[in-house]
Amino acid sequence: MTASSSNINNSTPYSPNMTDNKIRIGLFGFGTVGQGVYQILDKAKNSHAEIKHICVRDINKQRNIHPREGLLTDNASDIFDDPDINLIVELVDNADASYQIVTTALRRGIPVVSGSKAMIARHLPELIELQHTHHTALLYDASSCGSIPVIRNLEEYYDNDLLLEVKGILNGSSNYILSRVFDHGEDYADALHRAQTLGFAESDPSFDIEGYDALFKLIIITVHALGSYVAPEDIFTCGISNIHDADIQYAREKGAKIKLVAQVAKVSDEAFTMFVMPELVEKSKYIYSVDDEYNGVVIRGECYDRQFMFGKGAGGLPTASSILSDIMARLHHYRYEYKKMTYLDRPIYTTDIDVRVYIRYSDTDVPAALQFNKIIELHLTEQSNYLIGEIPLRRLIEHRDLFSAPDVFIANIPVFFIDRDN
Amino acid sequence: MTASSSNINNSTPYSPNMTDNKIRIGLFGFGTVGQGVYQILDKAKNSHAEIKHICVRDINKQRNIHPREGLLTDNASDIFDDPDINLIVELVDNADASYQIVTTALRRGIPVVSGSKAMIARHLPELIELQHTHHTALLYDASSCGSIPVIRNLEEYYDNDLLLEVKGILNGSSNYILSRVFDHGEDYADALHRAQTLGFAESDPSFDIEGYDALFKLIIITVHALGSYVAPEDIFTCGISNIHDADIQYAREKGAKIKLVAQVAKVSDEAFTMFVMPELVEKSKYIYSVDDEYNGVVIRGECYDRQFMFGKGAGGLPTASSILSDIMARLHHYRYEYKKMTYLDRPIYTTDIDVRVYIRYSDTDVPAALQFNKIIELHLTEQSNYLIGEIPLRRLIEHRDLFSAPDVFIANIPVFFIDRDN
Repeated sequence: MTASSSNINNSTPYSPNMTDNKIRIGLFGFGTVGQGVYQILDKAKNSHAEIKHICVRDINKQRNIHPREGLLTDNASDIFDDPDINLIVELVDNADASYQIVTTALRRGIPVVSGSKAMIARHLPELIELQHTHHTALLYDASSCGSIPVIRNLEEYYDNDLLLEVKGILNGSSNYILSRVFDHGEDYADALHRAQTLGFAESDPSFDIEGYDALFKLIIITVHALGSYVAPEDIFTCGISNIHDADIQYAREKGAKIKLVAQVAKVSDEAFTMFVMPELVEKSKYIYSVDDEYNGVVIRGECYDRQFMFGKGAGGLPTASSILSDIMARLHHYRYEYKKMTYLDRPIYTTDIDVRVYIRYSDTDVPAALQFNKIIELHLTEQSNYLIGEIPLRRLIEHRDLFSAPDVFIANIPVFFIDRDN
Repeated sequence: MTASSSNINNSTPYSPNMTDNKIRIGLFGFGTVGQGVYQILDKAKNSHAEIKHICVRDINKQRNIHPREGLLTDNASDIFDDPDINLIVELVDNADASYQIVTTALRRGIPVVSGSKAMIARHLPELIELQHTHHTALLYDASSCGSIPVIRNLEEYYDNDLLLEVKGILNGSSNYILSRVFDHGEDYADALHRAQTLGFAESDPSFDIEGYDALFKLIIITVHALGSYVAPEDIFTCGISNIHDADIQYAREKGAKIKLVAQVAKVSDEAFTMFVMPELVEKSKYIYSVDDEYNGVVIRGECYDRQFMFGKGAGGLPTASSILSDIMARLHHYRYEYKKMTYLDRPIYTTDIDVRVYIRYSDTDVPAALQFNKIIELHLTEQSNYLIGEIPLRRLIEHRDLFSAPDVFIANIPVFFIDRDN
């Protein structure tokens, strides 16, 4: 058979009835991402989706993009009570409002696409239950890594128990800052300021640079990677705000960069661990080359070794393109099945594993307080001290307050928990 | 809400009835990948899939892996006539046999997972029609890039008309050879021999190194990227077997590597082009760092810019892990919808676009025969000549015989067909 290309181009071997299958959207929030979704739906001519109402707090606020006449409202009922609306897209920048909108919609059986990672990470068990009880769907691929389809791939493609580890740079803002520091020799303070000017970091940047943004993404990823939910307060999370010239110098001498890395990994057949921490990343690692505002995720499993996915992790349009993918998935009634939550012998979360870390400190009581299992290297000078040591992750959580002191900086030195021959 | 992790670990918020939903497989072929699938199903405890029969040509052949007693058969009816079997996995190393098995299964309404890219690329329009007519499914993600989920992502996640380009290193064997040449300074002949010894290249390696393997993958990718099928003979395809020290030297002087690259790209809103050709890849490109037997694919679109996916593109177990993903997708009755084939204003295939190429030749009639639109650089020596010029892709197809002469080597120098501001 040698069908000519022109014949095939003109035939339509598949014709699902899509013309009467149209997504009519009620949009909550019209900030950067909301405006991106509005723009992108104009470009995507075949999307079979239109926005019917946009609900905002203040309809008179000055905006760069002016939606069509009659679209804006400040009354949520215009969306909830419109029987034509078959999808709610929730892009509100306030976790409480976001929770109200999403749970109200799900209780009424209206499917939702949401980008509110903090809210989702805190309430995921309840949100899964609501989807189940009310036979509806909540999609949130945009909530993790902007335009990289991590959730969808973990849910659909890595839909088996061969997965060993998901690890990556999940926050674009902190990565941008570290990239300015390591690749452009800027001061941390200058780099942070530049990130804020470019709109990568919020005016209160602590969400990004203290690791919470990456943490929330990691919690969501873990549900789809291993079928287990772990609450934010049970996970060791440390950011980059205490980074100092001495740390940068140390990393450079080792030919490494410091990056803020989130990871979940099986530590045995029965258990897994997870944490967010700066890491000394060697040149040979895939994530070493993830620079600027990009995100990169490594998925490691038995039999397939490593997969690496890389793309823009921040910004209005990249995130909006991910929202568009979720919107279009609803054309085909797609929902997450959370299949791994029903697996037999799911691994259990543990913090009883040793991690190897670099710690820089000035107060010499720090190592004593932490009680390292093993100190591999100790370096004491008049300016500052550092050590390389092994310590149970549990103990880092118990002493997490130590790491908020500005003279203490911790970075993971990665070890393999499971290194099975592939 | 702060649900503790242990509570959630023990609850099962979703309980699809999977226990009586089991995949019972009839496997055709028990070579490297077939054996990989057999091994991997043992490891994936929650796969809900088992092999019922394995049909091979010669049941007495010596094999490294011995399947359980009673599984092997040389009678295809043992599979086709077993009403218990609800999935056929076809991993046969012969395109005609593969075509017979797949079409027979589809006509009987039995879903199929296949890894036979050459057969699928040649017969895809008919195979789509058969799926439609007989209300069944053919999945083939393993056919493109081994363990990288390219097809599934193009079909499901990049399910919109923002896509501009898919470009990548799709053949592990030729990439391994070029990697030995560029990164380890080996001779081409030595590198080829080493690839054969390691099992990356077949004893007849022309399929890999002449670009046909990449071509077949590109044809399949294009159906899922843009909704259009183009037959193999209509696509310019040139491999790496004529590479010479002079070409390697030229690339090195430019700080580039030569890689075998397959690409499909929109050249305007109305048209797209596609080809397989060696390319001079600059250091700044994502695919520059795709070395050894790895594959890497860049997906570029409006609004999301570039996504890069990277992983093992060859080998029994990585390919088998991709087959496993397709098997498990059938647990949820997944099928490709070929949605983009129904899009309005789909772009039309064209070869009426100019490409910029490097050509090395000894016979000085070569440039005259090709009739370049523009010659940018011309370099003549006693040993060999090269030029950089611009030429319509159509003319390369018309004169494709020229490139089989051992003294002629062509490499693409990439230009952007569409470079919209993202």
